[in-house]
Parts: sequence; structure tokens; C-alpha cells
Amino acid sequence: MNQIIGKRISSDVILGVGDDAAAIKTNPECTQLVSSDSQVEGTHFNLDWIEPVSLGKRAISVSFSDIAAMGGTAKYSVVSLVLPNNLTLEFFQKLFSGIRQQTEYFDSQVIGGNISSGSDKLIIDITILGEVKRELLVSRSNAKVGDHIYVTGMLGNGVAGLELLRYHGLKYPSKYKNIVDSYLNPTARMKVGGNIARSKYATSMIDLSDGLSSDLGHICTNSKVGAEISYDLLPKDRLLNEIHSKSPEELKRIILHGGDCYELLFTVNPDVPIDLIKSISKESGVKLTRIGYVTPKERGIILIDAKKNRETLKPLGWNHFSE
Amino acid sequence: MNQIIGKRISSDVILGVGDDAAAIKTNPECTQLVSSDSQVEGTHFNLDWIEPVSLGKRAISVSFSDIAAMGGTAKYSVVSLVLPNNLTLEFFQKLFSGIRQQTEYFDSQVIGGNISSGSDKLIIDITILGEVKRELLVSRSNAKVGDHIYVTGMLGNGVAGLELLRYHGLKYPSKYKNIVDSYLNPTARMKVGGNIARSKYATSMIDLSDGLSSDLGHICTNSKVGAEISYDLLPKDRLLNEIHSKSPEELKRIILHGGDCYELLFTVNPDVPIDLIKSISKESGVKLTRIGYVTPKERGIILIDAKKNRETLKPLGWNHFSE
Repeated sequence: MNQIIGKRISSDVILGVGDDAAAIKTNPECTQLVSSDSQVEGTHFNLDWIEPVSLGKRAISVSFSDIAAMGGTAKYSVVSLVLPNNLTLEFFQKLFSGIRQQTEYFDSQVIGGNISSGSDKLIIDITILGEVKRELLVSRSNAKVGDHIYVTGMLGNGVAGLELLRYHGLKYPSKYKNIVDSYLNPTARMKVGGNIARSKYATSMIDLSDGLSSDLGHICTNSKVGAEISYDLLPKDRLLNEIHSKSPEELKRIILHGGDCYELLFTVNPDVPIDLIKSISKESGVKLTRIGYVTPKERGIILIDAKKNRETLKPLGWNHFSE
Repeated sequence: MNQIIGKRISSDVILGVGDDAAAIKTNPECTQLVSSDSQVEGTHFNLDWIEPVSLGKRAISVSFSDIAAMGGTAKYSVVSLVLPNNLTLEFFQKLFSGIRQQTEYFDSQVIGGNISSGSDKLIIDITILGEVKRELLVSRSNAKVGDHIYVTGMLGNGVAGLELLRYHGLKYPSKYKNIVDSYLNPTARMKVGGNIARSKYATSMIDLSDGLSSDLGHICTNSKVGAEISYDLLPKDRLLNEIHSKSPEELKRIILHGGDCYELLFTVNPDVPIDLIKSISKESGVKLTRIGYVTPKERGIILIDAKKNRETLKPLGWNHFSE
């Protein structure tokens, strides 16, 4: 593993890959952030339509997204791989090259890992260590009644890209390349997440990896609040309308419940000047859209649909033991 | 996951399970240690002969062993599970109960994790965060020519226990219970590892999870030295002799190359008084055995066998891409 990872050791890394454990000097001015994410062949990706380099880059972005959602900076990755017996060394080297490229893109470093065999599926499990100044940490727990709810970027593109790949493989219509790229190369919102945190105006933040309905639900549960959002306000790529022109219900499902989305949702006090939101958006190069507001807990989570009807928005995200 | 893990939050844990990432206050006086280990059904365990509680406890001990090998203390665990679709909630709860019991036994805490599905095999991937005072950190890299080589406990019991389970299932002869327990409930050598580190006499240390030949090889490679060890000096359970009375070559293979061993190997300067070694052994309640000494690199790694013949000891540990 040593040779493949390379040795880009920062002065805070006392021991990197190649001992029983990595040894690092932590930053006493910061709170450490720790998160892990797994990508399972067949569930999260299919080797028929994702190249190993892309797969490695994607696995890192997906994991880094959790650190972005706390307003933090990713520092170190620990990469555990379970490899099927038929996987070639060439595939592994390309996969690891993608992991390393994306890690370095975010000025971060692989410090450890583990390789096992014996599964029929390729499994990539990445633990990220990040950091954030204590006073800038944004959790899921402090959204207040009346706060405005914002999201970054566009909703639904990730899962729409995944569905295009599942249906067409790599022969999807070329005009949908950006949609497919949202799945293949999701952008961990490190920069805008950091800028939102530094503004000190966000009361809560989360990434939308489980889908809008589930993740807004997590904010509401943890903050003990309700929410009201409007379907018409949700930022949607016009190509999604085109793909689902004959199935508006399917489009709605994708936008509201689709996972594989690495945009951020955050809440801010309604007194925050709109110019501040605009300047965060401009500095980060990311669209920020207000989609609703926080309500008292007893009102639940309400969606105002396209016809101005009010409906309860139930979380339909993934839960292994939901049944 | 929240409910199952419980909420035993130390004051250093700002956010535990239930946000995008855990947030912890690190100890500015210590170097942080980070390690991960995977347990794959069929490769590392078989559900026919390991109960879910034992499996959870074992997964933690195996992971903590890497922190012990640095002389450190384990603080936090991040638990990633990939669950087969047919796995029951009851099994999962028992598995997690074992993980939690063993984590708390070592005065440590689960702070995060991730659950995925889609594999045919149960996979448990655990990342451990530990700590050690900077001046007490023991790596693999500082063994010096002339140093004495010691191991803790007995060699070969883990893999011998695994082989008994593979052959007999849970109906193995009861007199071999201790051998089987070495596999089912390995003891992470946290206490003796910490005591060895605090003595400041160890020049290098490693756990024997890949087997003696491989792990002594790692020490020699990282420290740029050779080694000479004597087969007769290696600590062996007398029951292993009994099990393999008709196959001394098989016994030798188990002792020299068998993995699933969570004993520690360490090197110390030859001037270290034997009374100090004895006092570490006594305080830790763990047998310490001198098995050989460190030689110049060009002499390679030599085994003096039972008939006093010298042979080169080749590492035969596991390597996914060894062929």
C-alpha cells in the first residue's frame, strides 16, 4: 500500500502509512471532525459504468461532504478496501490514483488504511479526519423557528445521473453529461461550507446525501423544530424537467427524496441581510437558494406543492432496518 | 444507529453519533494515533461458529491491537458495517452490543459510523483513534543491531483456535477451549503495550496480526536491520504440541506464519536489565519471552530451527497482490 499511496507527508504527520497506526499532531486551536462513509459495488456504483479513477475520486468527495457540512476542512483520510479476488492490480492502482488525486485536490492526505479480500463486491470505506475552529462548528441541532432554509446548487442531479447510467450505461445521451457528472464527480462543498461557517450566521447545516426529505428531517429532529418548504422554490436543472417531462411525479420523487446529492442545506436567522448570502454565493461560486423556513415542531414538515397544496413531507431516505 | 450505540459521551466529545461528523476535542499533550481494520465474513470469521456478541467484541480487540502496538491508549471508535440483506435486527443489536461492551471495557467510546447494505458478506470496518505522549510513541523503525527481541504471551494460539473452529465448528474438544478463546476473544495488549512504552526502553514494537515471520519482517524492513530468532525459544502452548503431535511441520507453520495473533513483538537495548523486563511482565500480567536479537541488515532474517540448523525466515503473511 505504501508504494501506491506515495509519501506526501505534512509536518503534522509523524508517522503515515506503514506502521501499526498513523501518528499525527492535532491542532489545539481546532475541534477535530471524524466521519466515515462506505461505497458498495452494486449499491452505490456499478463497475460497468464507472472507471476506477472516477470511483476513487467520487469516494473521497462523498466522504469529504460530511466534513463540509460541519463547516470544516478535511485533513486526513484512512482508506479501507475490501477487494474481490478477481480484481486486478491495475484496477487497484487506478482506484488509488483517483483517491490520491482527489485527496490532494482538497489539500489533504491519505495517512492509513487496510486491504482485505473475501467479498464478492468491491467495498470502499473511507474515514475522514477534519478540523474546524470550535466557534465555527455548525451542527444539525440549532435551527430556530423563523430561520430561513437554504440549499446550495441544484437538487436531484446526482440521483438523476445515477438513473441515466443505470438505464443507458455509458451510452447515455450526451446532452445529459452534466447530469451524469453530478453523480460521477460530485463536488464536496468544502469551500461554500467553510464560507457559510465563517459567516457565523448559520444555525444548522447538513449535506443532502440521504435526500432532501430525510436530511431536512434530520435537521428538524435534532433541532426540535418543523419546516415548511415550497416545491416551486427548489432549484432544479432544466434538463431534469426535460428527462421527466412525461412523469412529473417521478421528477418530484427525485428532487424530494433522491440521495447521492452532496449539496448542503443550512438555516440562517431571517434578519441576515440578503447581501451577505449573495456575497457568500459569489465568493464560493455556488448558487444559494432559499427554499422555505423553520416552523414550530408541532407543525411537522410541510411541502407546499406546485399547485399550492400543503402536504406532509415524509422522509423516504434509506434505512437498512426500516421495514 | 443512535439508539443502539447509546450515549456515553465524555466531555471531550462535542458531538457524538448523530451529526454529519463527530466532533472531538483532542489532547494537545498527545500525538493522535489512527488505525483501521476490517473483518470480512468468510475470510476472518464464519457465522456458523461465532456469536454476534463475540464477533463485535473481537472486531474491537483486533482494531485496538494496532494502538497497543504503538504504546497508546484507544479513545474513540468509528464503526462501518456492510450488512447482507438477510441480516436480522436482532443480530445487528447483539453485534453492536459486543462492540459497545468491548469499547467500554477499554474505557473508550463509539463516536460514529456508517451502515450500508448490498454485500453478500457481513463486513465490519473499524477505525480507532487513540493517543500517546509524543515521547512514548514506539514505531517499527528504530530497532538497532544487538537489540533483544521479545514477544508477549504465546504464539500460534489464535490461528490454531481458528483452525479448530473451521474443522469442528463449535463442537471442538473442550480441552482446547483456551486455544479457541485465543481466536474468539483475543486480548488487545493495551496494558503491556502501554507499560513497555512508558519504560522508554523499547526501540520498536508491532503486533503479530500478520504472523511472526511477516511482522518481524516489517520491523526489519522499517528499521533497516536483520534478525536472528530461535524456534526453541518461541513461546508455545503445550496443547499446540498435542494437537500437532504428528505434524511438527504444521505446528512450525502455525507458530512462524500464523496470523490472527494479537501478541506484541518489541525490541530493547541488550543493556536493559532483565529485572525491568520481569517487572513489566509482572505488572501487566503477561509473559514476556526473549526469542532472539537484531542483526545487521545484510544478514537477513534467520531462524535457528529445532535441530540448530540456520534457515532464512521468509515472510509468508497475507498480501492481496503477492502473486
